[in-house]
Amino acid sequence: MVAASTPARQSWLRRRLPILGWLPAYRWAYLPADLIAGLTLGVIAIPQSMAYALLANLPPQAGLYAAMVTPIAYAVFGTSRALSVGPMAVVALLTGNLVTQFAAPQSPQAVQIALCAALLVGAIQVVLGALRMGFVVNFLSYPVLSGFTTAAVIVIVLSQAKYLLGVSLTGPAPPLFEAIHLVEALPRANPVALAMGGASIAVMLVFNRRVGRWLTRAGSAEVVAGLVARTGGLVVVSIGTLLTWLLRLDEAAGLQIVGQVPTGLPPLSTPFVPTDALGAIAPSLLIITAISYVGSVSIAKSLASRQREKVDADQELIALGAANIAAALTSGLPVSGSFARSAVNVASGAVTQLSSLFAALVIACVLLLFTPLLYYLPQTVLAATIVATVISLPDLELIRRAWRYSRADWLTLMVTLVGALLLSVEAGLLLGVLFALAVHLWITSRPHITVIGRLEGTETYKSVERYTVKTCPHVVALRIDESLYFATASALEDALLNAALDHPQATHIVLDCSAVNRIDLSALSTLEMVDHQLKAIQVTLVLASVKGPIYRQLLKSGFVARFGPERFYLSTHAAMQALGCR
Amino acid sequence: MVAASTPARQSWLRRRLPILGWLPAYRWAYLPADLIAGLTLGVIAIPQSMAYALLANLPPQAGLYAAMVTPIAYAVFGTSRALSVGPMAVVALLTGNLVTQFAAPQSPQAVQIALCAALLVGAIQVVLGALRMGFVVNFLSYPVLSGFTTAAVIVIVLSQAKYLLGVSLTGPAPPLFEAIHLVEALPRANPVALAMGGASIAVMLVFNRRVGRWLTRAGSAEVVAGLVARTGGLVVVSIGTLLTWLLRLDEAAGLQIVGQVPTGLPPLSTPFVPTDALGAIAPSLLIITAISYVGSVSIAKSLASRQREKVDADQELIALGAANIAAALTSGLPVSGSFARSAVNVASGAVTQLSSLFAALVIACVLLLFTPLLYYLPQTVLAATIVATVISLPDLELIRRAWRYSRADWLTLMVTLVGALLLSVEAGLLLGVLFALAVHLWITSRPHITVIGRLEGTETYKSVERYTVKTCPHVVALRIDESLYFATASALEDALLNAALDHPQATHIVLDCSAVNRIDLSALSTLEMVDHQLKAIQVTLVLASVKGPIYRQLLKSGFVARFGPERFYLSTHAAMQALGCR
Repeated sequence: MVAASTPARQSWLRRRLPILGWLPAYRWAYLPADLIAGLTLGVIAIPQSMAYALLANLPPQAGLYAAMVTPIAYAVFGTSRALSVGPMAVVALLTGNLVTQFAAPQSPQAVQIALCAALLVGAIQVVLGALRMGFVVNFLSYPVLSGFTTAAVIVIVLSQAKYLLGVSLTGPAPPLFEAIHLVEALPRANPVALAMGGASIAVMLVFNRRVGRWLTRAGSAEVVAGLVARTGGLVVVSIGTLLTWLLRLDEAAGLQIVGQVPTGLPPLSTPFVPTDALGAIAPSLLIITAISYVGSVSIAKSLASRQREKVDADQELIALGAANIAAALTSGLPVSGSFARSAVNVASGAVTQLSSLFAALVIACVLLLFTPLLYYLPQTVLAATIVATVISLPDLELIRRAWRYSRADWLTLMVTLVGALLLSVEAGLLLGVLFALAVHLWITSRPHITVIGRLEGTETYKSVERYTVKTCPHVVALRIDESLYFATASALEDALLNAALDHPQATHIVLDCSAVNRIDLSALSTLEMVDHQLKAIQVTLVLASVKGPIYRQLLKSGFVARFGPERFYLSTHAAMQALGCR
Repeated sequence: MVAASTPARQSWLRRRLPILGWLPAYRWAYLPADLIAGLTLGVIAIPQSMAYALLANLPPQAGLYAAMVTPIAYAVFGTSRALSVGPMAVVALLTGNLVTQFAAPQSPQAVQIALCAALLVGAIQVVLGALRMGFVVNFLSYPVLSGFTTAAVIVIVLSQAKYLLGVSLTGPAPPLFEAIHLVEALPRANPVALAMGGASIAVMLVFNRRVGRWLTRAGSAEVVAGLVARTGGLVVVSIGTLLTWLLRLDEAAGLQIVGQVPTGLPPLSTPFVPTDALGAIAPSLLIITAISYVGSVSIAKSLASRQREKVDADQELIALGAANIAAALTSGLPVSGSFARSAVNVASGAVTQLSSLFAALVIACVLLLFTPLLYYLPQTVLAATIVATVISLPDLELIRRAWRYSRADWLTLMVTLVGALLLSVEAGLLLGVLFALAVHLWITSRPHITVIGRLEGTETYKSVERYTVKTCPHVVALRIDESLYFATASALEDALLNAALDHPQATHIVLDCSAVNRIDLSALSTLEMVDHQLKAIQVTLVLASVKGPIYRQLLKSGFVARFGPERFYLSTHAAMQALGCR
């Protein structure tokens, strides 16, 4: 037993610590690719992580700390080769919303709240992962996520507009009121901030969307072109900082600047969990947990499939949890997988998570050596990098597709979007999830039930409404296209009783269960009750095509014996034959 | 067009006012049966309705008023011939819980709150019925209703114990604490109240369970035996009142009595709706609405099926709403269908709702002439009639069946039951509904997905795990036994990608959709994404046995054209043949 347990233990360890798999097998040949990808990642992450810290109402170094530390934790626990973990726009927005409920932006209290959030989000993720509960995020449907993301982007742009305009606004408000406040603040706008922010957005958009293509067309290698195209953030940050320093725009034009960023590696921190406020922050924490995971795992899956690899969704949850806990212990903020950075990582040729470790090294260098350079970085430029990044997130095409494909899905999307804009992004998300559930139950509770008949010359039974089929005067065959559970029980009851009423000469009803994937106790009780009522009016109910797993459950519970095993048939055709319909 | 509209209008009127159908067609031959049934109903309803008013923390006449007025409203609007509408135990309990939140028991304020509840519950029911939204009660599954009913009965018995013991308790408390308070109050118990209450329960149980059988065995006609068996309530009320009056037990032994019941027909009332408290009472109101309807419609359906009749569930909702509104306007309390009384009504031979109108006449006589007789009616006897009636409600057998049939259903039942006992019946019900939804989604989110192969010599494809079937090296056939929607999208993605990984030599994957009853936008997007990923690794996905309604939706939205119509096959067999598997 001892000998046998060692490989099992080893495989458990390898599953829980994937780094034990890939690091010992690392080949030096991968190094150049991982190095280039790591440098690129680092260059992108520096302005982005500071900007997201700003979005989370935290001092800019919190973003740099998280961007440096969390990829290291992920590299140890994560199963994806190329996923880039770190500060992410929507998670930063949610963290910012939580922070402003309890503290002034960028205050030490704000940092404390963010650390507490990172710790609890991480802990919840690790526990859910260990319990193999990653499936819960399945309930965030595409329309809900799409409506939520679109609303989040609008809210993010609105939240950054005050930096772009160089004005300050009174406290937080629902998105629509924020927009009104911004319009009122327009006359007070700082023209220099506005000009620099606008120019930065324009430059970044040109880099993101054109530069790569221009360079490729001009003959550059694709890797080089891709790399240069990603440096838009670095360019606007450098130019903006240089201009502000040279022209002393902070004093001359009242431009808000980042100010002093402390030099040195991320300081260790002890997150404090306010047990008395847990109830109040629980909904926000659960939403951050879910959104942080949804983003991460979907990117990881999509990256893995290209390399014919599997992603362990539960281990991903543990890895992301470890990254968030690491952020909590090193003065960071809650993190997630970043789609944009992961794509860059893959495009730059990353083979393993070593590229993320190199990126961490780049950020460590900045923290140790170059923080004084960040002093004159204008906040309007950071806001511009956020805006230029997030405006590509909303999938407006999906709204049109939803409309064409299914009004229910479209309505779900709009409920989420409008709810998020009128109330808050968190409320919109919850509303959307509940609405999607209600719609699903509503649809399944009105299942397609049809009388079926035999296609002449075959053993196939089809709806009498759409096919010319042969029916039988004394036997009604019904097919229900839905599982039998509490929401469909009543429809089942009505359908069976109405079939008996509509066919007064019928002595038998055959219920075709080929589309029934589950029968719960409510439906079973209904079935027994209806059977009882049908018996009273001399109609016999028989069941056809009951699936194997359901039949075994019915057998085990004693239903088959009670109902009569002779009333089960392998197929509708077998039942019809046995009942004398030729 | 004018000529054509008259019959349509007439049929609309007949649907909305079913009395226009049955009353003009009434035959005098029905009269004796309806008269006897009506007298029986009235005799049962008098003590029962007063007792339920007590349970609702209202003065006893409120019960009499509702028992008299609401069957009249139901007779006009209802579709069931034999349903008996009026005060009902669980609805009275819920009303009582609402009342004690705002007013002292049996005070004028208490009556005001009950009237407001009846009005709003009625209005909600009428609106839901008019909108054809009766289906929402489908979400109260059997396990939830069973757990709720069992808990409600325990709570009702606990609430009546103080009358049986003749003690008063401090304000309302969660059921478990109520039980502790009762045990503490035992030493203070009034022995006379306890003796009379205990004797009353015993007598009623003997009547309910034995007397009918004894009489039949002794040669009585079944109708007479049934009638006598139902008079237990009348017997204990008469004897209890007589004893109390003769021995002056109210003064001699401190027995609590009903006291003065005003003489006269139900006074008209104007319910006052406190708009500022609507938010606070909304959950209770919705629960009363749902429970009042669930009880009513299930009884109506069960009664109708015996006579090969249909019940219009939405019209039932309107009729019940009308009854509740009538109660609100005539000093009553919220009502529902009563299973026990309806069964008596049928057993006594009722042919139409005229029996309920006769019962109303009986109660009107009591209100006009005999209220002084009720003065000395002891509250312990009323409590005894409640206890003797409700203890037969819980279906303990269902708990055992749930355990045997499905642990998920059993757990749902227990969550509802324990939640109701630890918190409140309302909280337990909500908890149970949410738990049942979560369980359903959890189960459907882990669908049965299996690789299938051909049963030699047939065109049937079955799971490779359970049958000896023929598979094909370059084509993997998969069957998913669940609709494709947001909760199953992730399982679908994993199954398809894993199939490609597990069969590296496969060039095609056939997805058998015969058990797929719905594809929502989330699943469709996942399907497109997975198809894209499979293409990248040279695997072609094809769909087989897509159902008609789903195919038409896919066609209309442009998916079929995008995906390729040649990739849809009528059956798995057709797909396998086309892909060269013989």
